[in-house]
Amino acid sequence: MTTVKIFLNGNFVEKDKVTISALDAGLLYGFGLFETLRSYQGKPFLLDRHLERLFSSAQTLGLRSAFSEQEIEKATLQLLKINALSDAYIKIVLSKKEETSPNICSEEPSDSDLLIIVRELQAYPPDLYGQGMKTVVVDIRQNEGSPIPHFKSLNFLNNILAREEARQKGALEGIMLNNQGLVAEGTMSNIFMIKRETIATPSLETGLLPGITRAVVMELAQDIGHPVQERKIFLSELLEAEECFLTNSLMEIMPVSSVGGIKIGTEVPGSVTRALMEEYQKLVYRESASQDP
Amino acid sequence: MTTVKIFLNGNFVEKDKVTISALDAGLLYGFGLFETLRSYQGKPFLLDRHLERLFSSAQTLGLRSAFSEQEIEKATLQLLKINALSDAYIKIVLSKKEETSPNICSEEPSDSDLLIIVRELQAYPPDLYGQGMKTVVVDIRQNEGSPIPHFKSLNFLNNILAREEARQKGALEGIMLNNQGLVAEGTMSNIFMIKRETIATPSLETGLLPGITRAVVMELAQDIGHPVQERKIFLSELLEAEECFLTNSLMEIMPVSSVGGIKIGTEVPGSVTRALMEEYQKLVYRESASQDP
Repeated sequence: MTTVKIFLNGNFVEKDKVTISALDAGLLYGFGLFETLRSYQGKPFLLDRHLERLFSSAQTLGLRSAFSEQEIEKATLQLLKINALSDAYIKIVLSKKEETSPNICSEEPSDSDLLIIVRELQAYPPDLYGQGMKTVVVDIRQNEGSPIPHFKSLNFLNNILAREEARQKGALEGIMLNNQGLVAEGTMSNIFMIKRETIATPSLETGLLPGITRAVVMELAQDIGHPVQERKIFLSELLEAEECFLTNSLMEIMPVSSVGGIKIGTEVPGSVTRALMEEYQKLVYRESASQDP
Repeated sequence: MTTVKIFLNGNFVEKDKVTISALDAGLLYGFGLFETLRSYQGKPFLLDRHLERLFSSAQTLGLRSAFSEQEIEKATLQLLKINALSDAYIKIVLSKKEETSPNICSEEPSDSDLLIIVRELQAYPPDLYGQGMKTVVVDIRQNEGSPIPHFKSLNFLNNILAREEARQKGALEGIMLNNQGLVAEGTMSNIFMIKRETIATPSLETGLLPGITRAVVMELAQDIGHPVQERKIFLSELLEAEECFLTNSLMEIMPVSSVGGIKIGTEVPGSVTRALMEEYQKLVYRESASQDP
């Protein structure tokens, strides 16, 4: 690929020329939001749900988008075409412009920059979905006493350092506890565990991102007769689980084979995880085979 | 003032033209650091100590500055002159450039953008230093299980939301606890308390920024025979303190008159706080009256 185009505030701009003010609050304070999702065959998957979360978080933070959900959807589709991408990584960023008032949070919503980035998808090795991923519990904790983990904000350094810790410990993904020692989430994913055919995932007050794939998996599980319990999960429980998997928009449903060297379950993926993976693929098929656009 | 100049990567640029790539990790992940300090009579106060912290944090995060401490000092002085500022707010930002490797933390240090912003100082109302500041304890907690609070990083949304909470509760500054309920810091300051002439401040493992003014106050206190205990501080202790004050580079030493409506001590500022405020002013005088530059 020669030049890559990025969408910035209504324009399709060459990668090297996509600039914003260095005085923007998005840079200076991490005052902004993002969404990461993927496309299948040129069609962004569950974009409406990602935009719903983006707009809802933006309202809470007092951020105003100059573009509607429909306009962002249209721009994303165009951008995929312009870059000739079919199965792509998509990142949508809403970043607060330069602060105008001395108080950073003002009564009036603030203007923002809208950025859409697409790239060829760097998929996880296919073998992992059959063998499961090795994970470790990282030392870096998630902050249960703050709203920040509930937003996909431009404050992402905690998760990045936590993932780096996991990599240094030889794992692709790390599991984060909160300061009470409860299981919260993966550094870049949500976590589910299964015991006696009961699926559980940490509840939001543990301190975690309400992931879109997390929500979808909960719906799919309900559909196949395994409603998911959202609750406190102790690390000891997780280590005794029969099955465990991680979710995010890019990895979809990833079986976990071990946590810190301790094997999870006897078969990977286990039967419940496998059933959910199949349901998820059916959903992908339905959504990407649908008529428009 | 007509045009304001900003220092960006070696150039003095007009405010409206100071741009960075929207793909930089400083924006997309808050992967960067900053320092806030002030100048007295055109001379940045304790710039060397701020740069020491900046460079030490940068090394930990794997960020490389294209400019030496000496070059940054020179640029800051020039920028103050160009903008004809004497008592100024100074912000120095080191922000990671676009990620080149798929892993955000790579073995090699990453290149960064250097930004220096100066503005006329918006000082706190002088009356406050005589009457003390009303504060509240905010609900938003500091994360004791993460290294992030130890860095002055571009991940600043937790502190901003906490300060906003304080403002909505009618106070200029909020006091943050950690998830264990221990006193950590102000949303934009460090905190000290005094009981029976003993000064105490929360220790770093509580989850807080090792502030430059915090360190200086500890040295000054030692000089006048009141060594500071760094330790766990319970909220109940703080509420029973005889004196309390906040520190940061811009507010210097700010006496606290109340915490959540509960009056602190009988006299504000108390005698120990007053002694420290005097020592601090002497230090400011010594530093800004010194020969060079």
